[in-house]
Amino acid sequence: MEGAPYHSTSTRVTRLPAGEVVDDRLAVEEPLEIRVNGQAVAVTMRTPGYDEELALGFCLTEGLVPAAARLPDDLAANTVDVDAPGADLTAIQRSFYTSSSCGVCGKGALEAVAVGSPPVAGDLMVPFDVVTRLPDLLRDAQPTFAQTGGLHATGMFSVDGELLCAREDVGRHNAMDKVIGWAFRAGRLPLAGVVLCVSGRLSFELVQKAAVAGCPVLVAVGAPSSLAVELAVDRGLTLCGFVRNGRANVYSHPERIVPPPG
Amino acid sequence: MEGAPYHSTSTRVTRLPAGEVVDDRLAVEEPLEIRVNGQAVAVTMRTPGYDEELALGFCLTEGLVPAAARLPDDLAANTVDVDAPGADLTAIQRSFYTSSSCGVCGKGALEAVAVGSPPVAGDLMVPFDVVTRLPDLLRDAQPTFAQTGGLHATGMFSVDGELLCAREDVGRHNAMDKVIGWAFRAGRLPLAGVVLCVSGRLSFELVQKAAVAGCPVLVAVGAPSSLAVELAVDRGLTLCGFVRNGRANVYSHPERIVPPPG
Repeated sequence: MEGAPYHSTSTRVTRLPAGEVVDDRLAVEEPLEIRVNGQAVAVTMRTPGYDEELALGFCLTEGLVPAAARLPDDLAANTVDVDAPGADLTAIQRSFYTSSSCGVCGKGALEAVAVGSPPVAGDLMVPFDVVTRLPDLLRDAQPTFAQTGGLHATGMFSVDGELLCAREDVGRHNAMDKVIGWAFRAGRLPLAGVVLCVSGRLSFELVQKAAVAGCPVLVAVGAPSSLAVELAVDRGLTLCGFVRNGRANVYSHPERIVPPPG
Repeated sequence: MEGAPYHSTSTRVTRLPAGEVVDDRLAVEEPLEIRVNGQAVAVTMRTPGYDEELALGFCLTEGLVPAAARLPDDLAANTVDVDAPGADLTAIQRSFYTSSSCGVCGKGALEAVAVGSPPVAGDLMVPFDVVTRLPDLLRDAQPTFAQTGGLHATGMFSVDGELLCAREDVGRHNAMDKVIGWAFRAGRLPLAGVVLCVSGRLSFELVQKAAVAGCPVLVAVGAPSSLAVELAVDRGLTLCGFVRNGRANVYSHPERIVPPPG
């Protein structure tokens, strides 16, 4: 997998203390307006590329059922159109605005922000040694990170550790949306038989996306938040964090991880 | 500065490969609804604490002029009310939705998403050795990161490297909003005489917040994005990234950094 040229751009940088001025690479960040049935529903700051997958994954994990996504003739327009027949667009606005007068009060935090989804399917088993290998395998699939040091990534792996899809983005939620959008187009949803691995920390939002996509095991190099763990426990998802140096913390449903022998 | 107890929470974690189950700490993440003049304008996933400063900083850096912020009697409500007499709330919705039919097309990326602000004031000078010390000084002011490994931070420093204010949050934009909200209440805006330092990467959004607050020098441990550099160049802000091990990359307006002697 190569880093597409539009994922990074060149810049001039002054290196201190030496003081030399050299060329360097930056991760590209640009706005993308996502439109559903002709109505603008969100502007996200993303790294260009795979915009249709991003829009599809975004809609899916916000509770909509998209049929297709397409780019405009003018790619510089930074827009993407999603067809979602019969979609209730008030659902997608939940994450950004609440329209009720009571806001998020009177509900638990989870109920206030969670997208409805069934519990994830239960019988996937992943060897511990595969879990510990995923961060390095993901890093090997991040050509633009290698250039810029400035991109998050999400990878989708088989339980044997085979890379199925990896996407990089300045926004960690966008990287996961792109992977889920790819899986949607490939007819692979729900993600009952695979593992998702993210390059950074685990927010509530990332666990929500994985849960809505039906993925039972989510692995991260970094730390999860309290609400990330709470949602994983509630949805039946196995959450592994701090996966480094042959070790891992399992925050929920550890029964899916097959311990090393002995 | 101590880590307030509500910034982290306890959890049970299975440590692999050993298999022991131990208590661990997680960074707290909960939704906060920000209301302006009684109208809900945003829900942000944040670490509780300093919610009034967060709301003030958010409004200021979205182009509103707040008068005051207050919490409800029931703190569990996870809402905060901002008074902003005469505010045009369509401005604050720019970041989330575009209402025009042309979306972000037909404009440059910067014009499409940037909040209007004057160029930052120009005469601050910061010694290079202070720049290189800021990431460690910020880390020392992150008690909850030390517990959880899961929080971003923003610190405000004098040009001598004295810490003036530090805030932690699961969202890096929230951490900066809290610092800017603190400065607003302290009567310190615009931030013409200080340096802001962030614990991670530099997105467009973070540079925008610093620029709107009038801060001339922004320092980061990580990499900037393309649009972050573009905005810094345009607004006259000095951007230092990859500040590690006594070195730094300066991406814009290096004239404010005083090189080491010799």
